[in-house]
Amino acid sequence: MRTAAVYGTGLIGTSVALALVARGVTVHLVDHDLKQARIAAALGAGTDAAPKGRVDLAVVAVPPAHVAATLAEVMERGAARGYIDVASVKGGPHHELEALGIDLTAYVGTHPMSGRERSGPLAATADLFEGRPWVLTPTRDTDTEVLNLALELVALCQAVPVVMDADAHDRAVALVSHMPRLVSSMVAARLEDAEEAAVRLCGQGIRDVTRIAASNPRMWIDILSANPGPVAELLSALAADLDETVGALHALQSADEDKHRLGAAGIEEVLRRGSAGQVRVPGKHGSASTTFETVAVLIDDQPGQLARIFVDADRAGINIEDVRIEHATGQQAGLVQLMVWPKSAPLLSASLRERGWSIREVVKH
Amino acid sequence: MRTAAVYGTGLIGTSVALALVARGVTVHLVDHDLKQARIAAALGAGTDAAPKGRVDLAVVAVPPAHVAATLAEVMERGAARGYIDVASVKGGPHHELEALGIDLTAYVGTHPMSGRERSGPLAATADLFEGRPWVLTPTRDTDTEVLNLALELVALCQAVPVVMDADAHDRAVALVSHMPRLVSSMVAARLEDAEEAAVRLCGQGIRDVTRIAASNPRMWIDILSANPGPVAELLSALAADLDETVGALHALQSADEDKHRLGAAGIEEVLRRGSAGQVRVPGKHGSASTTFETVAVLIDDQPGQLARIFVDADRAGINIEDVRIEHATGQQAGLVQLMVWPKSAPLLSASLRERGWSIREVVKH
Repeated sequence: MRTAAVYGTGLIGTSVALALVARGVTVHLVDHDLKQARIAAALGAGTDAAPKGRVDLAVVAVPPAHVAATLAEVMERGAARGYIDVASVKGGPHHELEALGIDLTAYVGTHPMSGRERSGPLAATADLFEGRPWVLTPTRDTDTEVLNLALELVALCQAVPVVMDADAHDRAVALVSHMPRLVSSMVAARLEDAEEAAVRLCGQGIRDVTRIAASNPRMWIDILSANPGPVAELLSALAADLDETVGALHALQSADEDKHRLGAAGIEEVLRRGSAGQVRVPGKHGSASTTFETVAVLIDDQPGQLARIFVDADRAGINIEDVRIEHATGQQAGLVQLMVWPKSAPLLSASLRERGWSIREVVKH
Repeated sequence: MRTAAVYGTGLIGTSVALALVARGVTVHLVDHDLKQARIAAALGAGTDAAPKGRVDLAVVAVPPAHVAATLAEVMERGAARGYIDVASVKGGPHHELEALGIDLTAYVGTHPMSGRERSGPLAATADLFEGRPWVLTPTRDTDTEVLNLALELVALCQAVPVVMDADAHDRAVALVSHMPRLVSSMVAARLEDAEEAAVRLCGQGIRDVTRIAASNPRMWIDILSANPGPVAELLSALAADLDETVGALHALQSADEDKHRLGAAGIEEVLRRGSAGQVRVPGKHGSASTTFETVAVLIDDQPGQLARIFVDADRAGINIEDVRIEHATGQQAGLVQLMVWPKSAPLLSASLRERGWSIREVVKH
């Protein structure tokens, strides 16, 4: 790939452009807001001059609602050898393009799964996609050369390509992203009118469950609006689970011993299924989350305490795989949970104790 | 307080005993499993000899199902001046004791909100409760001297006392702990039979939402069984929210513009309520979670990288308030999110850049 055109110079478009420019590709930046394109160009993401002739790859990175129309326009005038979009939902644009009767052999839908906490070209970086999954949704009609252009782009952005069917992708992101986002909001919503004393009892559990309820609502309305079917299906299934669990809880209140036993079995089954699903969530580097052990260290929140823990772990030759700080209400003390490979846990625990740290506990996951 | 008796030498009972012994209180350890009591005594948590005469405070730390019977037994023989239990649900035991016609002036229900990932005396530590909320549920009949004994115990354990009505406590823990635990399981359960390709797309969001779905199912069946009413009520309210959201998602699929608008408004409202609730979840030291800014640093997962980041932050004189490692699928690179007070964020970002770190972005919460 020698030349590319990026349509839409927001966070994603500009980050792709920066990555391509860094690898020597000539990038043309196009945005209906000329000022945005000029900012992206000033950041070193390419030129805002129109390409002379056909480019190798056109990357459509406009807002979801404009993807199909922009693709149709650039494809009709043959602007590139291959065309991709980067919208977070894939079935819709594809069906819209099909309905327009456009030849789709030169198009591949794609979805880079990067965090998108910010927006706009100023937030863009060439390494936004590094190590992240980047889904590609070719069909049987997709030209192999075009698929290879898209794969080359993913490689240049140092992302990890994952090939999926467009509708399977939409069901997958509904499952691992859109449904959890809505459920997190619904759990958090229960706190809106809660008494202050109740809120004081919040611990790390609810803090984790509700964290994503804080993320960009404007962007999420767009995402959810583009994928209502699969999300609704999952929420309905969840509502059925909730109803069953409410039934089990009511049975637990029954004086009838058989009913009570049935209720307990119902709750046990919900928890069992949850454990079975949770184990599948990949941890760091795609390994199962269950492979680490936690060494919990008490700190008094003096400046430099965290640094000293990590330096001491490093001296012991142990790599910390993940870390979490557990908080104390209204106190200056905290608990630092260090996650390490099981064989390292006893060594880490012993080394830190030796260096004067107070080790709370070692937990096997 | 000079003398105490601890009934039940599991994690909580032994930890209380260790804290009391460390402060000079004479502690008698009682367990129907004599070996458990002997282990606790060997750990320095007190003596397994029976007390000679009445102790100042009896701490009942037996499994939830045995709390009322054990309390009734020790109160009937006047074993102590004051009596507390430490069960995680408070309405039930109280009502059971009332039904037994026992004089409850010398009793206070309590609930230390410590993490309980492990169990048994070997996991116990004197600092298990340090900085954690410890709920007390006195009634208007509670003897003031007894309440003060309980408050003294909480102070000796270095916990933060929170006084609440027993039923309000049970509704509060249903809200901030039991309901989120079940919902986390239900979200995770959807992954049990998911396709491998979908599971590969999991990011930090679903990882956080489902984390607590992994915790001790046996203990959770006991907890949920003791608090079915308030939990069922919350799950029903959540089911109603889910149904409404499913309706809004279906409306979004409608060709009718008015319906579509209504659907979008419905989704917007769920997200808005979620944000409003999430803001109330206390962050570190009970401060609002919204007060920190995040500086994200790219690491390549070489040993010692985390230590170097923390040392560099420390050299810049900046205290890291919270930290999170974001994971890359199948890659050896990661993103470390450092949460700091807003005034420190630009300084931290600049200092780390100067020392050669790749800063991804600074996010305001």
